[in-house]
Amino acid sequence: MHYVHTYAVSVEFGDCDPAQIVHFPNYYRWIDAASRNFFARCGVPPWRELEPATGVIGTPLVDTHARFLRTASYGDRLEVDTEVLEWRRKSFVMRHRIRRGDVLLVECEEVRIFAARAGADPHVIRAVPVPADIRARCGEGAVEQDAAS
Amino acid sequence: MHYVHTYAVSVEFGDCDPAQIVHFPNYYRWIDAASRNFFARCGVPPWRELEPATGVIGTPLVDTHARFLRTASYGDRLEVDTEVLEWRRKSFVMRHRIRRGDVLLVECEEVRIFAARAGADPHVIRAVPVPADIRARCGEGAVEQDAAS
Amino acid sequence: MHYVHTYAVSVEFGDCDPAQIVHFPNYYRWIDAASRNFFARCGVPPWRELEPATGVIGTPLVDTHARFLRTASYGDRLEVDTEVLEWRRKSFVMRHRIRRGDVLLVECEEVRIFAARAGADPHVIRAVPVPADIRARCGEGAVEQDAAS
Amino acid sequence: MHYVHTYAVSVEFGDCDPAQIVHFPNYYRWIDAASRNFFARCGVPPWRELEPATGVIGTPLVDTHARFLRTASYGDRLEVDTEVLEWRRKSFVMRHRIRRGDVLLVECEEVRIFAARAGADPHVIRAVPVPADIRARCGEGAVEQDAAS
Repeated sequence: MHYVHTYAVSVEFGDCDPAQIVHFPNYYRWIDAASRNFFARCGVPPWRELEPATGVIGTPLVDTHARFLRTASYGDRLEVDTEVLEWRRKSFVMRHRIRRGDVLLVECEEVRIFAARAGADPHVIRAVPVPADIRARCGEGAVEQDAAS
Repeated sequence: MHYVHTYAVSVEFGDCDPAQIVHFPNYYRWIDAASRNFFARCGVPPWRELEPATGVIGTPLVDTHARFLRTASYGDRLEVDTEVLEWRRKSFVMRHRIRRGDVLLVECEEVRIFAARAGADPHVIRAVPVPADIRARCGEGAVEQDAAS
Repeated sequence: MHYVHTYAVSVEFGDCDPAQIVHFPNYYRWIDAASRNFFARCGVPPWRELEPATGVIGTPLVDTHARFLRTASYGDRLEVDTEVLEWRRKSFVMRHRIRRGDVLLVECEEVRIFAARAGADPHVIRAVPVPADIRARCGEGAVEQDAAS
Repeated sequence: MHYVHTYAVSVEFGDCDPAQIVHFPNYYRWIDAASRNFFARCGVPPWRELEPATGVIGTPLVDTHARFLRTASYGDRLEVDTEVLEWRRKSFVMRHRIRRGDVLLVECEEVRIFAARAGADPHVIRAVPVPADIRARCGEGAVEQDAAS
């Protein structure tokens, strides 16, 4: 079993488009927030504090696949369940399920890397090995840590 | 051969995150804009003008898959090449390629439907058959129309 | 005394710009959410439910003035205190104070109207008198209602 | 006479809310883009290139006042006219007028500073004197430079 983090979202008027439903890029905004909060909940500090020692500036996407099953509108309360399905050497597979209560709205699987700069130019970043302490904090054992807190 | 529409994007400071690169939900904002501009360029009016006669309120996503190959930062000029790979009865497959000059940054394939309301509640929408005139305007023959204009 | 509604915000990585601080348009996103939640908390339904009977489609801005005193970054928890300073016949003055604990970050005063469509074209909207029941729900007496709940 | 920069905006479906009009925080997104493009057009490099030599990380707002006169919807083409009304020692006053053709939609006056970090913590920034070369590039004489290019 592994650690699942739940991130709460309140859908606002401005998140919706003229069709009265959530404009889909906002789901990615919430997914990205859920992803970082997953790490924060495991005790990983903000990237800006991690960068001086490790070079890590974030966990950008390299691949993402989503299915949109149901719509949402403002006033809805959603939850994003986030978990790591697989840890690889320089990347990891994350799954996000966005629910309204028991109703699944969006399911998204993504491959992310831990990225560091390759120089001053932000156009060039490189994947670094998944930091061992982050994997330890957020990996399989993390479910106990989470249950205990 | 089919019609390919190119949508220009100027990457702004506010589109970038603390890693100095484009925050990825913005790519979806541009992809969605490219998708509607594809239809607008074929002569399809705003959905708000189409709804009274056809019920169509937009072309929401049902499935999307993207690969992120390179980063971008503010000051960059990007282009999104959009085309329909396949027309189905109630959906269509769209591909977007986001380039900086000749350098491919993002490639995205998505399945969208033509949606209509199923009642007053925005939470319930339904797929309607792809309107024949839109398919005719934006389909295979459209490349000539585009070339002639 | 009048009713003050507090709206909670979690600042996310994607809300921040390359200067590592909140990109200011996001403060307006939160202010707009705080404004509608103020009304929702008083029992006002979503505009989409109000429109058939009253014509009201929302409360767009006509004037807004903000002072930015301190910065915020991701990981911060903020609160927006929202209150109506003045009810006029066809508009109202709202004040929002965005705090991190006791530290005031942003102060914003705005004039909003209750708007209805003037026809099918969304470019033309008109101010309507502040609905009496909304003013009653959210006005001076509302503080007791709030305290009791 | 001084330099006025015009920034073009294409209003997209996703920029509009359920009232079918532009969700107002997007105007601030465009205003912020217009502000940086004003400087870019005068030859000021991206802040990320300026920071190593000057410490400048951007031009955050300290005060802003806007009037919203007309609405816009998707399909509209807008223009933002940006100019500096006043240069002060550590701040400047910028005015943005957002037009659709000759029709003024939004007028915004803002006070911005040139900001530098006061340490590693992004929560603390400080105003620095307006760099003399930027003022020279973008100030009164700039209108000739602009006209000549």
